[in-house]
Amino acid sequence: MTPLRSWLAVPKESPFSLRCLPFGIISSAADPSRRVAVAIGNHAVDLKAFALGGGFQGLPEMHSHTDVFSEDALNRFAALGQDRHRAVRTYLQGVLRADDTAHAALLRDNAPLRASAIVPLASVTMHLPMRIGDYTDFYAGIRHASTVGTILRGADKALQPNYTHLPVAYHGRASSIVVSGTPVRRPRGQILPAGSATPVFAACRRMDIELEMAALVCRDSALGTPIDVNEAASYVFGYVLMNDWSARDIQAWEYVPLGPFTAKNFGTTISPWVVLADALEPFRTAALPNDTPLQPYLNESRTDAIFDIHLRVELKTASGNSMVLSNSNAANLIWSFPQMIAHHTITGCNLQVGDLLGSGTISGPDPGTQGSLLEANMGGKTPIQLPGGETRMFLEDGDTITITGWAGDEEGGLVGFGDCTGQVLPALV
Amino acid sequence: MTPLRSWLAVPKESPFSLRCLPFGIISSAADPSRRVAVAIGNHAVDLKAFALGGGFQGLPEMHSHTDVFSEDALNRFAALGQDRHRAVRTYLQGVLRADDTAHAALLRDNAPLRASAIVPLASVTMHLPMRIGDYTDFYAGIRHASTVGTILRGADKALQPNYTHLPVAYHGRASSIVVSGTPVRRPRGQILPAGSATPVFAACRRMDIELEMAALVCRDSALGTPIDVNEAASYVFGYVLMNDWSARDIQAWEYVPLGPFTAKNFGTTISPWVVLADALEPFRTAALPNDTPLQPYLNESRTDAIFDIHLRVELKTASGNSMVLSNSNAANLIWSFPQMIAHHTITGCNLQVGDLLGSGTISGPDPGTQGSLLEANMGGKTPIQLPGGETRMFLEDGDTITITGWAGDEEGGLVGFGDCTGQVLPALV
Repeated sequence: MTPLRSWLAVPKESPFSLRCLPFGIISSAADPSRRVAVAIGNHAVDLKAFALGGGFQGLPEMHSHTDVFSEDALNRFAALGQDRHRAVRTYLQGVLRADDTAHAALLRDNAPLRASAIVPLASVTMHLPMRIGDYTDFYAGIRHASTVGTILRGADKALQPNYTHLPVAYHGRASSIVVSGTPVRRPRGQILPAGSATPVFAACRRMDIELEMAALVCRDSALGTPIDVNEAASYVFGYVLMNDWSARDIQAWEYVPLGPFTAKNFGTTISPWVVLADALEPFRTAALPNDTPLQPYLNESRTDAIFDIHLRVELKTASGNSMVLSNSNAANLIWSFPQMIAHHTITGCNLQVGDLLGSGTISGPDPGTQGSLLEANMGGKTPIQLPGGETRMFLEDGDTITITGWAGDEEGGLVGFGDCTGQVLPALV
Repeated sequence: MTPLRSWLAVPKESPFSLRCLPFGIISSAADPSRRVAVAIGNHAVDLKAFALGGGFQGLPEMHSHTDVFSEDALNRFAALGQDRHRAVRTYLQGVLRADDTAHAALLRDNAPLRASAIVPLASVTMHLPMRIGDYTDFYAGIRHASTVGTILRGADKALQPNYTHLPVAYHGRASSIVVSGTPVRRPRGQILPAGSATPVFAACRRMDIELEMAALVCRDSALGTPIDVNEAASYVFGYVLMNDWSARDIQAWEYVPLGPFTAKNFGTTISPWVVLADALEPFRTAALPNDTPLQPYLNESRTDAIFDIHLRVELKTASGNSMVLSNSNAANLIWSFPQMIAHHTITGCNLQVGDLLGSGTISGPDPGTQGSLLEANMGGKTPIQLPGGETRMFLEDGDTITITGWAGDEEGGLVGFGDCTGQVLPALV
């Protein structure tokens, strides 16, 4: 792939090449208001400042819409639809390209606007990219579902009979979704000790992570009208990384018969930069095979409906030891996001701009590719060995988990997400 | 209880006595904007018009806040807190009381304001009372849980071991909550025919209702900080009736292992008028007994933590036959709303203004008191006999379900909710 070169210096290893150009919400000491920006290399381009400085004069269709960049969330920009997202992203790539002289006067050669609109990433605070309405978490990582099912119910009953017929999911809690960097407090709750019939109240002893990708929605659908699987991609604004923190011991006691509740609603971390659907187009690939004949509403015409994105989970302990816990890939899914959307709406449920759809835990097939500690430690049996002699079964206080993800290579320019990170705080006493 | 008499005619059988004075969002032909109103008898008092007409001049603490009554949802009014809700409700009761001459000039003797602010209920359109952030549905109706558990798993395993230790719940879908009067389309989805290993795609054949009450939240809580059970009542703005429409056949196939999803997210109906927490204070009663020793965080100091509210479900068929399906009572719960809130937040989950908390299906102990058809028909075995020779196992197209609920009596003035109603539309073809 021919690299897109920018007149701004972009380190080769940056997740935010000009091919990526993700959208997020920033604030800064100079302007504490939340506003829209794109990331490129080590910089953010403040689109509020850029718009106010006349930067969009080369894109007439956005003239009456540039106020969306002064918003404190991406919802209104998202609601403009994929055609406009594409137009804006392509236009900004032009403004930032080294070989695009037509737009050079707008920013590159406009010193005052460059000074106000180009901000070092190190100086900005990132915020949740959207006002999230409803959050749904799917379970499309079949390798995770198989391994966890084996741990809980044995190998012969690992997957429930419905698993390959429909994208299993549950409704999650939107209020406790936080942006990367927010510490997450170890929860306390009811836990059933092994061999006991009576629960105790205690701090979670099996605090875990779940490596996920999540889609953000950019279109409202009508209540009562399912979304066609082959139209569903048009509802996706873009993607973020997600860590669905989980309290395994609390979950085991509470989850029958209605599913996870307090074990999952104390915090869910997402990465701040939304990689637009368009930016991932070059990285399409096939989902994991599913031999089950599907109902027509799940039959997607394209076979390259998911993405080849490298995913990595790193652990850093309070003592400073760190290790890569997992190298996985977003292609380890049995259902695509369009299939998830088609199923989500099949009974008539409506989607709204700002909804978040999680993939479920994305685990690969081998040791070192699992998306949760529960899998890596074989159901709490085999501790993970860290450098420096530390071991981990589940998370300990002070541990920091960082998920990163990227498609492409340094040659062509990485299309990455930046960090999805959070540190475990001690439980309340 | 001494009745509060109004100078406005209030029919004795009206759910909206002066003791009730519920809050809702109206629009009308004369003013199509959505705005706040209270209901009394057969009238709405338009609080936007009342405020603009100087109606709140006798309540100085609201002077800088009367713009909340021009909002299209009750969220900002709710966020002012229970002290202000009480002050406004008490003040409006004064303005409307027959024996309160101090406030008579404000409305009763102010013909132009009366003409603009007092609107027949028959002429207004009701809207969702709040912008609902997250919706959580509990399972606190032990009689429903026992009967359904017996149908699904047998009498010896009817209740899961956790049931009396914690308020079981799941996160629901907020986007598909609709206001009373909105038709609900019969969903289509995956159903596993009896004796088959392969699902079919079909219109739901076991469409059901769930009779519930729901609390609306008026305070934000901090992420990471549980709400004390004895402080939790201060988070409740008020209550509505709710019908959690359910597709039993779709639910049976999809719900393992993560709980109900598409079987419950196609529509949830709530009544439009919010009965403030204060209005239900005189009707406190004890929850159903629970012999299980509770964790301290669920130990509520007051024993009269739930409400004696008569609940009724009526069915009217397309042929015009109608019958009362159920007479139940909101006291048929094993957990109070403060206990639900304490449990919801125990791991650190935050609540936000506008969150909706459903009670779970409220069934009494006897035939004719069940809150779902699945219970009334003994798991789909015994059809219900209607007048006119019709029978019903589950809902048929054209059926209208209306839930009503009221506390108190006609003598003292009813504290009621009005209708929570919806008609079943045929499935898409």
